[in-house]
Amino acid sequence: MELITALKWRYATKKMNGQPVPQDKVDAILEATYLAPTSSGLQPYEVIVITNDALKENIREVANNQSQITDSSHLLVFAAWDNYTAERINDVFLHTTTERGLPSNAMDDYKNRLIAAYTSRSAQENFEHAARQAYIGFGMAIAAAAVLEVDATPMEGFNNSALDKLLDLEAKGLKSVTLLPLGYRDASNDWLVNLKKVRKPKEAFISVIS
Amino acid sequence: MELITALKWRYATKKMNGQPVPQDKVDAILEATYLAPTSSGLQPYEVIVITNDALKENIREVANNQSQITDSSHLLVFAAWDNYTAERINDVFLHTTTERGLPSNAMDDYKNRLIAAYTSRSAQENFEHAARQAYIGFGMAIAAAAVLEVDATPMEGFNNSALDKLLDLEAKGLKSVTLLPLGYRDASNDWLVNLKKVRKPKEAFISVIS
Repeated sequence: MELITALKWRYATKKMNGQPVPQDKVDAILEATYLAPTSSGLQPYEVIVITNDALKENIREVANNQSQITDSSHLLVFAAWDNYTAERINDVFLHTTTERGLPSNAMDDYKNRLIAAYTSRSAQENFEHAARQAYIGFGMAIAAAAVLEVDATPMEGFNNSALDKLLDLEAKGLKSVTLLPLGYRDASNDWLVNLKKVRKPKEAFISVIS
Repeated sequence: MELITALKWRYATKKMNGQPVPQDKVDAILEATYLAPTSSGLQPYEVIVITNDALKENIREVANNQSQITDSSHLLVFAAWDNYTAERINDVFLHTTTERGLPSNAMDDYKNRLIAAYTSRSAQENFEHAARQAYIGFGMAIAAAAVLEVDATPMEGFNNSALDKLLDLEAKGLKSVTLLPLGYRDASNDWLVNLKKVRKPKEAFISVIS
């Protein structure tokens, strides 16, 4: 489906029917996220794909009992770095220079400026910045799902620390930020599906200075 | 262009050639942003489209002199609410109930829970949340531009408070979060265009729990 048409078609699905999303579509949604730009290319977040039913049940319990979590076939968890560290930044640049066939110190000036800037900020400030990057990829995943006519429900309403514990994220230096269950709408049981999609008057959202 | 192909084609353009982006493409990019989902549908940010050359010059000065700002034909500024307030939330719900042909109090339970939750948080916490929503729309704009083969440069590196002053954003209750110049790559003068796009090894970005 064409992007704008797809964005009009999509909605925050409230009731899914349990039908599984084919793996090739899940892969394409993940690919869009993977390709999403991030600040300085650091990709300071990860995506965890959960298909395990028991784990989805446990997550549903810490996510306001939202049924899409267990009625989706794939639950994506977006989890951001809890901090930027010199080690993490060094790892990214070593990978980048290797992939580009450059000497490992070829980007050192830029890298060292980044390390100096990030390590002078608080962990909380850095986490907020990493979380913002995750939201770009989150947006790409939502767009890609819609284009493929896969339903998805963007979710922030869950107990982040409880989810972090369930997924042992602290040990990985990550903190959960959003959830995206993927599945298919159960149109006959979804109270939202037939309500008009409402956005602000366009002139309240977009202004032009010419 | 198909979405995944487009996301591979796009890159953070470092040098633009000054060619203008046709208005219908700009409109489609803005439409994708406008349609982007936000938490509880509050759309807590605005997009300012700048085509004025003198203003772009002034913005370039507070944005590390990045040439794309003046070589783009349209500069998008994403600016988030500086806070969630009862008045702002009431306005959104009044619009939504009106658009859906519902009594104005039809969503009061939900609305009042939101107002209670947001107004108990600090302005900074609320701004951070609003900024995250802006990043979803920012991602959608980046995706839409790529699909239309329009180049764009996602930018965070600028003096936010100086830009807020230039655009008088404080008076509107907004704070700038990102910039997105739209234009066309000047391939023969862009140092980045021929460098390999690098992402982390996929297994370091995506994990599966089955």
